[in-house]
Amino acid sequence: MTTPAQFKPGLDGIVAAQTAISEVDGENGRLIYHGYLISDLAEKATYEEVAHLLWLGHLPTASELAVLKQTLASQRDLPAPVLATIRALPATTDPMDLLRTAVSALGAALNMQAKPTLDHAMALTARFPTILAAFQRLRNGQEPVAPRADLDHSANYLYMLTGAVPEQRHVQSLDTYLVLLADHGMNASTFTARVIASTESDMCSAVTGAIGALKGPLHGGAPALVLKMLQAIGTPENAQAWVNNELDHHGRIMGIGHRVYKTYDPRAEILRKMAERASTPDFFTLARTTEQVALDELHRRKPTERLWTNVEFYSAGVLHSVGLPGDLFTPTFAVSRVAGWTAHVLEQMTNNRLMRPASQYTGPMALTFEPVERRNGQ
Amino acid sequence: MTTPAQFKPGLDGIVAAQTAISEVDGENGRLIYHGYLISDLAEKATYEEVAHLLWLGHLPTASELAVLKQTLASQRDLPAPVLATIRALPATTDPMDLLRTAVSALGAALNMQAKPTLDHAMALTARFPTILAAFQRLRNGQEPVAPRADLDHSANYLYMLTGAVPEQRHVQSLDTYLVLLADHGMNASTFTARVIASTESDMCSAVTGAIGALKGPLHGGAPALVLKMLQAIGTPENAQAWVNNELDHHGRIMGIGHRVYKTYDPRAEILRKMAERASTPDFFTLARTTEQVALDELHRRKPTERLWTNVEFYSAGVLHSVGLPGDLFTPTFAVSRVAGWTAHVLEQMTNNRLMRPASQYTGPMALTFEPVERRNGQ
Repeated sequence: MTTPAQFKPGLDGIVAAQTAISEVDGENGRLIYHGYLISDLAEKATYEEVAHLLWLGHLPTASELAVLKQTLASQRDLPAPVLATIRALPATTDPMDLLRTAVSALGAALNMQAKPTLDHAMALTARFPTILAAFQRLRNGQEPVAPRADLDHSANYLYMLTGAVPEQRHVQSLDTYLVLLADHGMNASTFTARVIASTESDMCSAVTGAIGALKGPLHGGAPALVLKMLQAIGTPENAQAWVNNELDHHGRIMGIGHRVYKTYDPRAEILRKMAERASTPDFFTLARTTEQVALDELHRRKPTERLWTNVEFYSAGVLHSVGLPGDLFTPTFAVSRVAGWTAHVLEQMTNNRLMRPASQYTGPMALTFEPVERRNGQ
Repeated sequence: MTTPAQFKPGLDGIVAAQTAISEVDGENGRLIYHGYLISDLAEKATYEEVAHLLWLGHLPTASELAVLKQTLASQRDLPAPVLATIRALPATTDPMDLLRTAVSALGAALNMQAKPTLDHAMALTARFPTILAAFQRLRNGQEPVAPRADLDHSANYLYMLTGAVPEQRHVQSLDTYLVLLADHGMNASTFTARVIASTESDMCSAVTGAIGALKGPLHGGAPALVLKMLQAIGTPENAQAWVNNELDHHGRIMGIGHRVYKTYDPRAEILRKMAERASTPDFFTLARTTEQVALDELHRRKPTERLWTNVEFYSAGVLHSVGLPGDLFTPTFAVSRVAGWTAHVLEQMTNNRLMRPASQYTGPMALTFEPVERRNGQ
């Protein structure tokens, strides 16, 4: 029997998996996807290329890329039970709840049972945008727009949202965002997917669980809150007072700080430059001022903590600039990350062991059951 | 920065949480729910009493129990979008996929957002039987039966399956089963729920993820496979040859072995005695002979491994005896365990830290991006 180690809240520093998919080098502010620096992939690689890299361990050749694009494009339609599920849920449904439910229904409708395969990974990845676009239209009283097989993943997502072929600059912004967010080591949602897969459950169960984890504000739920924050601040002159008040009362600023990065998140830097190009000057100035004020104030108050801007902060600006409503920011994070989740599930299953940690019992011992009629209140 | 520890596949011995909810004492074959031995609770406590114990840390007084029963009974109806979702999925849907999807839809329909509460725990627990009974009837071409508020949790579940008030011996068997399975330390599905909750996501997201983890054959997916195994063996005389063949080719027998128990699982012992009373003599003799043959053969082949019967083995006999089809065994495990999952989520949130473990990177480094037209195949 293993003697349980000391309790480490949050599992900090516990190695939960060996992975060749990505590496977060928090000390040096580097993110690597299977050998490639994220700064090298951003604005050069497409989302489909990155998905291929994460799933198969190498960038596709021209013919491999054509096959992958065709495979994804051919699977964008939703099975009837999934569309019926989306229609059954109220227009007021939280979009992450909608995505979690529709993806679960998708696994059910496709009868996605163990063992997880690359086909399952592609079947899910192909349909995330269709689910979200269908819901976005239905809740606005419009009928869903059928996917177009001649458009790439990002372009088709924007197309299905509006029914119009999107501007190339918006496609480029969204696609770069999807590249940047596609994987990130052993984050909480990826870890969730690997824990679920470790029971020999199916690909859809793992991904559905991961969506639930991504929803949390400590993980993927922050970008919409960054947008709300910036809207609440309103103008750059208000930033200092707002930041002071927030830190006095809540102790943290949305979009600042990360468990692993101890320097500027490399994705945030790329997104900041994109936001500068893509956002209105007023919006960018507001965001940049707020960031600077927040970093200065945090460094003054918590000089030992090495808090820097994370990926969520400028995600808000970029996703806002391509026309997405705030409550689709986190679901669009999922549109990207599903490639990473599914790659990790496939990797987990190559050398699996059930994830079954220990717990430390802190409750009472040796109580004796008394029938209800003899019990006294506490 | 914490220096990552050595990789431990499966997180064996890693303490992922402190908990006052339950303790699995694997060396001595004891399971404790908040101070009470499972052997003391089984066949004395009801499922509602145990749910109260897990959620609130004490057994209910008579008036607390009455309030809890009334609260659960009043919430058994399904919101219209949930029933529509169940109707939208094909009759051939895997019941765990159905449960995962309907529970996710339930969270969406009830707009179950953070922060998790006891009300959320009760809202989910109350409706698991309704979801499964509705599906069981619909897939057999029958309309769902409305719940009856005057029946307790187990009795009402059996009632909704058939439309007839169940025999008391079946209610007793099912209720004891639900008591036995309601919690079990840091198992993979409970761990999943706590990881998801640690992102500050909502109760439904945590429970939906847990359902996906429970589905795996290494966790909750085994009882139906035990039934299939016994049906394949057919008669006690075939057991030895079947066990030998299975161990020669697959190395394991469904329902034998457990990560934590190094002796007979106390729940298996209680379920064995129940199965002896509740099953037909032929079925019980077949199960008992198979168990004995399998244990003897495993102990002969793997003398150092301390393999014993786990809870899944006799779950099959007990759930079969109350009239459940094999593919509802694991979903009925979930009907029980949802009390434990939700209790753990509530506990996680009393002193939360995001579960964000590390990974060890094993992939390549320092690759240079080449545009697709300059790439060669691998």
